[in-house]
Amino acid sequence: MSLPLRQKQEHTLFYSSLCPFSRKIRLQLAEKKMMWRAFEERLFAPSEKLCSLNPEGTTPVLVMGGDVLVKSYAIQEYIEERVPDFSLLGDKPSARGEVRRLLSWFDEKLFYEVTQKFLNEKVIKRSRGNCEPDASVLRQARQALYEHMDYIGWLFDRRSWLAGSQLTLADLAAAAQLSCIDYLGDVSWDKYPSTKEWFVKMKSRPSFRPLLMESFVGIIPSRTYRMLDF
Amino acid sequence: MSLPLRQKQEHTLFYSSLCPFSRKIRLQLAEKKMMWRAFEERLFAPSEKLCSLNPEGTTPVLVMGGDVLVKSYAIQEYIEERVPDFSLLGDKPSARGEVRRLLSWFDEKLFYEVTQKFLNEKVIKRSRGNCEPDASVLRQARQALYEHMDYIGWLFDRRSWLAGSQLTLADLAAAAQLSCIDYLGDVSWDKYPSTKEWFVKMKSRPSFRPLLMESFVGIIPSRTYRMLDF
Repeated sequence: MSLPLRQKQEHTLFYSSLCPFSRKIRLQLAEKKMMWRAFEERLFAPSEKLCSLNPEGTTPVLVMGGDVLVKSYAIQEYIEERVPDFSLLGDKPSARGEVRRLLSWFDEKLFYEVTQKFLNEKVIKRSRGNCEPDASVLRQARQALYEHMDYIGWLFDRRSWLAGSQLTLADLAAAAQLSCIDYLGDVSWDKYPSTKEWFVKMKSRPSFRPLLMESFVGIIPSRTYRMLDF
Repeated sequence: MSLPLRQKQEHTLFYSSLCPFSRKIRLQLAEKKMMWRAFEERLFAPSEKLCSLNPEGTTPVLVMGGDVLVKSYAIQEYIEERVPDFSLLGDKPSARGEVRRLLSWFDEKLFYEVTQKFLNEKVIKRSRGNCEPDASVLRQARQALYEHMDYIGWLFDRRSWLAGSQLTLADLAAAAQLSCIDYLGDVSWDKYPSTKEWFVKMKSRPSFRPLLMESFVGIIPSRTYRMLDF
């Protein structure tokens, strides 16, 4: 008799610590109580092993049951299909539609408008030497961030979780992006009480603990990053 | 007895003519032999009706079986779930993983690096008045386009279709982006014979015909746009 998929230890995830898409998949695997081996990759400096699996050199990459999955959209849907007993996409077609709408929103809009800008200015430039962050880009990103925090709070005022009455991938995607931003900067949480309340709820989940324990080489996390009550 | 989903006429798609994501969904609906009513929206000038369904004001939006679907990721997965008898995602989990990897590639990378730049410079600026396209942005977009055309040709040299041995959403997504670009510019097709061969095959499908017949107000399509043998 073979072990069920979630107990197999040969699943392997290649991730980067501050990659929000890696964080989303790590949260998904943990929420599904899957076990996996993790290979940490340096952000934007892929290893040979990673490139042999994904010539694009991006994280996350999941190797599971002999299949190699690249891009978080492919990975998250694959995990949902292979381990369907506890759905993070919702049960009804319309509910899944709302989850996927929000996944597009957070993975694209929030990422390109905010997270990518913070990562570029505060991590990538730093890793390349003496280039200073561009204050006007950071100001722009911060402005967009507060619009997204408004929207997250608006959703949470109306629902138990962002996409409806249950925890879904939409919560994991938003929390993954916000946790990267929170690591790198001083987010004005107190101005967005609903968003803060939702984020406290997310941070308190056991799936979140490994992310909160993490340190990114050379960059100290913000004052609020590890605190559950901030 | 109720009609099967594909024969119901009350499905409604809100689309914009040169929106590549609308094109992808129109191709998907046509390949599935679905019937639907179409509401044309002006690119980046959403109607009140569209905004009442999708406050973000973006196309495509699909109303199907009482559900409102927003964002092409949500729409394409919804259609695949509701009309599963002829899959455009592939049958095996690993095949679906490859299709979704390519969907991410074309819908994000090809879009942001190329299609969005062409649309901004050649359509949006034009609609706002006397602002000329920025030649350096167009040059950048053209350079990126040729890398994508190389990649599409590379895939097609190894496979019958872009993601494997059958037509999938990956082909529709790539063709949707390329058809918008082809409408707006002079693509050097002859330099990329494999990509051209694949695109001729795509353009010859009945699902493609309505796109080729289309005219975008005030902008004449390129010389090659309507030709099946160019």
